[in-house]
Amino acid sequence: MMAQPTPYVLNRAEKMIVDLLSQHGALSRTDLAMRTGYSRAKISSAVQALIERNILEEVGDEGSRGGRRARLLNFSSNVGYIFGVDVGATSVDIALSDFTGRILQRFETPADVRSGPDVLLGMILEQMLRMLEAAHLVPEQIHGIGIGVPGPVEFSTGLLIAPPIMPGWEAFPIREYFPRTFPNAAVIVDNDVNVMALGELRRGKNIKAQNFILIKIGTGIGCGIVCQGQVYRGSSGCAGDVGHICVDYNGPTCHCGNRGCVEAMAAGPAIAAKAMQAAKEGRSPILQELMENNHGLLTAKDVGIAASRGDRVAVSLIQEAGKLIGEMLAGVVNFFNPSLILIGGGVSNIGYQLLSSIRQAVLARSLPLSTRDLRIEYNTLRGEAGIYGAIYLALEHIFTCASTTPTNFDE
Amino acid sequence: MMAQPTPYVLNRAEKMIVDLLSQHGALSRTDLAMRTGYSRAKISSAVQALIERNILEEVGDEGSRGGRRARLLNFSSNVGYIFGVDVGATSVDIALSDFTGRILQRFETPADVRSGPDVLLGMILEQMLRMLEAAHLVPEQIHGIGIGVPGPVEFSTGLLIAPPIMPGWEAFPIREYFPRTFPNAAVIVDNDVNVMALGELRRGKNIKAQNFILIKIGTGIGCGIVCQGQVYRGSSGCAGDVGHICVDYNGPTCHCGNRGCVEAMAAGPAIAAKAMQAAKEGRSPILQELMENNHGLLTAKDVGIAASRGDRVAVSLIQEAGKLIGEMLAGVVNFFNPSLILIGGGVSNIGYQLLSSIRQAVLARSLPLSTRDLRIEYNTLRGEAGIYGAIYLALEHIFTCASTTPTNFDE
Repeated sequence: MMAQPTPYVLNRAEKMIVDLLSQHGALSRTDLAMRTGYSRAKISSAVQALIERNILEEVGDEGSRGGRRARLLNFSSNVGYIFGVDVGATSVDIALSDFTGRILQRFETPADVRSGPDVLLGMILEQMLRMLEAAHLVPEQIHGIGIGVPGPVEFSTGLLIAPPIMPGWEAFPIREYFPRTFPNAAVIVDNDVNVMALGELRRGKNIKAQNFILIKIGTGIGCGIVCQGQVYRGSSGCAGDVGHICVDYNGPTCHCGNRGCVEAMAAGPAIAAKAMQAAKEGRSPILQELMENNHGLLTAKDVGIAASRGDRVAVSLIQEAGKLIGEMLAGVVNFFNPSLILIGGGVSNIGYQLLSSIRQAVLARSLPLSTRDLRIEYNTLRGEAGIYGAIYLALEHIFTCASTTPTNFDE
Repeated sequence: MMAQPTPYVLNRAEKMIVDLLSQHGALSRTDLAMRTGYSRAKISSAVQALIERNILEEVGDEGSRGGRRARLLNFSSNVGYIFGVDVGATSVDIALSDFTGRILQRFETPADVRSGPDVLLGMILEQMLRMLEAAHLVPEQIHGIGIGVPGPVEFSTGLLIAPPIMPGWEAFPIREYFPRTFPNAAVIVDNDVNVMALGELRRGKNIKAQNFILIKIGTGIGCGIVCQGQVYRGSSGCAGDVGHICVDYNGPTCHCGNRGCVEAMAAGPAIAAKAMQAAKEGRSPILQELMENNHGLLTAKDVGIAASRGDRVAVSLIQEAGKLIGEMLAGVVNFFNPSLILIGGGVSNIGYQLLSSIRQAVLARSLPLSTRDLRIEYNTLRGEAGIYGAIYLALEHIFTCASTTPTNFDE
């Protein structure tokens, strides 16, 4: 494993300052003191240290609020840039951003993840260079690359472990693909749900919760966990694998070998399979018509279309999926007591019935105290959560905190 | 709500030092530097500040390791003492300890929690004063009282919320009962499973995991969660309420109103009810005999006795309970990916078949990556987890860290 470029090691106050600036952009010392809880004197000395290291600079005055105008601080213009990459099953999204998460260049394209790492990463690299050129930047100015991928990642190494929909990517050294081109960039890889949860944590609209989960419903069902204001990955890095929680001990067999996993009963393919069954049995003329127009196949999206046209079978399929997902979530709520559940992923758009059925099932099965202040909503950044998460994945690695206790890891 | 005595506010290095001393007793500056990851210089200045505040003192030399002997540091002899109180359904356990968790006096007695807070707290207070006298201490020397109770606690206020087995305790201001007698003591109340988990975290044998859960199986089934080295209580303080996770959607109705809760099917009363049914139906002569000797009643403990005498029905009842608990835990493992599950509580002693059935069910139903490094064991302190947890509950409150980010709480 190639060594990663050394991140900036900061003390706790400095780390809190750069985190706030990366989330909010330019702030005054007074703002920083208020938001961190540190004294004005402590903030001033931390800011001074960051200016001396060329990380921050003063960028002008705050708008007048009556009284003396405060100087605003932001990242130094030469501190560098970030690439965020959101790899989906059938698409790639690349963003070039500054250290405040402001996107300078964006490139989205359909792409099949099954074409393998060499083809896909080659295409990504080529695009990155074009985007740099368009922004009049050079590769040396890139200090971090954050990559979200649709499969299980061993976070410490950035390697994919038995990814079901990414043949050829198993244990491929993604991180080592970039340093030849971007010598100053740390490369961080994580799975797509963790990345989406991070995106919501840092840039979500009105997200104040520090303990929340993000459920992604698509081909599979996965979950990103934010615990005490940080993405929680668990002891082996596979926390949040809720797709294989059982919701029916006599249910159908899942590809994992167990029966009644929520993923086997309520993710996109399960909804599509039930819809095709209903169409074949003549229970839904609308689904039948959609299937005939699509070479005998249906997707979860078609079920959403049929539901929006008033098809009762489609509506009940969506409600059934919502109920099963809600029953799984009820257990998660009893255990984890989050204040917020965000619902995302392609299948989450299937119809409003999904969210209301999820809510109903959670309220019915969780304990009253744990749902008293619980909100269940669509994820606030919708399709943008992944790309912002990828940017912040890199940013979080660039600035690390010295005083993290070294005993803070498992055996 | 009466104001609590102000805790010592420390910076992060100082907090790590007092935490290490409270867990390990006397340590040298070199030990402290090694265990915290801070430089020797940083440790020396933090230690100096703690000595100047009369929190620490030098207590002698380390045994010779060849070369210069290092001075050992420990809490100052006038820093004070702690009471830990472990209130069970039918017992009370009180310990007087110093700031390193060393128990100076201990008092255990049967007591019925249903006699209500006035009777029970009155008895506890009286015993505390006797214990102080025996130790030649005065009430002013008590700086913290940690109390574990067998019911759901709103941690921020220390109030019990709808406790099922504690009539008369609902919203009783436990914290305000003590300050008249112990003017310098902060009083912290938490539920028994969180307290047991904290006891294992701070004093468990060979516990290095920073992400683990402790399951208590007794009259109910509850769980304490340790996340990143801290007890995690969730957004409303009710995290870990796993007793009402569903393991059979067609199962019996639970007192919470839902069907198939693991507590309704596998906790002590459920095991006892199934055993009485078997005895009545003549399926087990041993259980029948035990029931006749006990006025027509059986407890989970009797099932354990019958199993140890080779009774097949009793063995299969234990295995069935283990399987159901394991199926519930499989979901928790997929979600939380802990490295360790500790099994405690009265019913955990029922027979070795319980632990092996739990293990089997978790391995069968969790994903391979999440069980690769997972250990499932009895809790290491057994019946002592609660009393040590109560002591550390108070200690954690006495020393608080200034640099905890104020945004680190939920809305």
